[in-house]
Amino acid sequence: MTDGTLYLIGTGPGDRAHLTPAACAAITRSAVVVGYRRYLDLLGDLLDGKEIVAAGLREETARARRAIAHAREGRAVALVSSGDAGVYGMAGLALELLAAEGWRPGDSPYVEIIPGITAATAAAALLGAPLMHDWACISLSDLLTPWPIIRSRLKAVAVADFVVCLYNPRSNARDWQLGEARDILLSEREPDTPVGIVRNAGREDQAVRTTTLTALDPTGVDMLTTVIVGNRTTVDLGGMLYTPRGYQTKEAK
Amino acid sequence: MTDGTLYLIGTGPGDRAHLTPAACAAITRSAVVVGYRRYLDLLGDLLDGKEIVAAGLREETARARRAIAHAREGRAVALVSSGDAGVYGMAGLALELLAAEGWRPGDSPYVEIIPGITAATAAAALLGAPLMHDWACISLSDLLTPWPIIRSRLKAVAVADFVVCLYNPRSNARDWQLGEARDILLSEREPDTPVGIVRNAGREDQAVRTTTLTALDPTGVDMLTTVIVGNRTTVDLGGMLYTPRGYQTKEAK
Repeated sequence: MTDGTLYLIGTGPGDRAHLTPAACAAITRSAVVVGYRRYLDLLGDLLDGKEIVAAGLREETARARRAIAHAREGRAVALVSSGDAGVYGMAGLALELLAAEGWRPGDSPYVEIIPGITAATAAAALLGAPLMHDWACISLSDLLTPWPIIRSRLKAVAVADFVVCLYNPRSNARDWQLGEARDILLSEREPDTPVGIVRNAGREDQAVRTTTLTALDPTGVDMLTTVIVGNRTTVDLGGMLYTPRGYQTKEAK
Repeated sequence: MTDGTLYLIGTGPGDRAHLTPAACAAITRSAVVVGYRRYLDLLGDLLDGKEIVAAGLREETARARRAIAHAREGRAVALVSSGDAGVYGMAGLALELLAAEGWRPGDSPYVEIIPGITAATAAAALLGAPLMHDWACISLSDLLTPWPIIRSRLKAVAVADFVVCLYNPRSNARDWQLGEARDILLSEREPDTPVGIVRNAGREDQAVRTTTLTALDPTGVDMLTTVIVGNRTTVDLGGMLYTPRGYQTKEAK
């Protein structure tokens, strides 16, 4: 039996315009494509002739296990995440499951990770350039991480003045975390700190808006939304944000 | 005179395989391409027939001003950064300079930011999946940011257990910051915390290795290198890193 290959692929925000040639080529080389139904739909004719294993949103472990099983059969398998597979995506889960089976680098199947445009930079580009100084990604999902850890991270980056990108800010079942995150950030930042809100970046119903930290209303935010909170220097030019490069303007003078 | 366009473009780590179709199309539509010589060289025949404005590494403000001036003449201009233009790239600087001239969204020139694969996710993909839990980007360059601010951020993310991606870790002129960053992180993490070091991701002389925090030797690190320091749960499988998704393993059971 030939060795299988497992590609762990990030397809970017959605739009094919942000799918890299490397990701495209890996999907093309794969016989089997495994992913969440909603994201696979965005790949269109790239999937023609492939065996498709589509699953629901909450079946991540099952999806990763099926991808690994197909690769162990000697096949070329693409396990697809939206954004970047290594940022709250499927790459870490696949490696975690492989490691638990005793797999080590160099073993079969061959594993290759192909990066994608992650939600933070996709959203940032639509908002201007809010991530121009030190920034942090925090997921507000407390399904796998206890809230006290998330809370302590929010407090730490609030105090140390990071720009903050919030992933998984709110879902029907988790409706209070974003409000608490806002209040933690407000304890260290001015009420008029600029905030950017991007829903469905790179997709048909893309929506981009800016507001202030004190006016951030969780009601309009869901799992398809990315929220970026500026640092103490971030400027809202009127719907477009930028964070100056430095706390000095030495070179710019 | 027709309105000009200023594209602020991230070209990814280097390899054309990671240049998105959106970035490619914007360069194609541009009459003028402005960028750092070393990065422009990687774009090859995409630049055929374009007016090229290449400049040195330290001439960022001059590059941005020239790009803006050409766009104000009514031309389509691509201002190119490696990685993502909005992550320590040229996008923020261009918006900063435009804002200082009184420009606001909707004014001429039209400005569009096109995201790219940033060094953090490019390096992470080569290392496995180290960025699978909350993570922070910190630039160790103290040219525009006072070191006490950088130090306080390193301490904050060390305590709050973020995975940390270090940009601009070391140059000939800044040779001590990485050692101090390591020591700050060591004050809160185990000596055997996994570290990934990637030099020239996606380029011909790409080099990828893993080590531990206590063994991290700044000597082998330069401005073309990205350093990723794991959190308390990051695992080195033998040259490949992953960070488990959760501090609980509820779903994985």
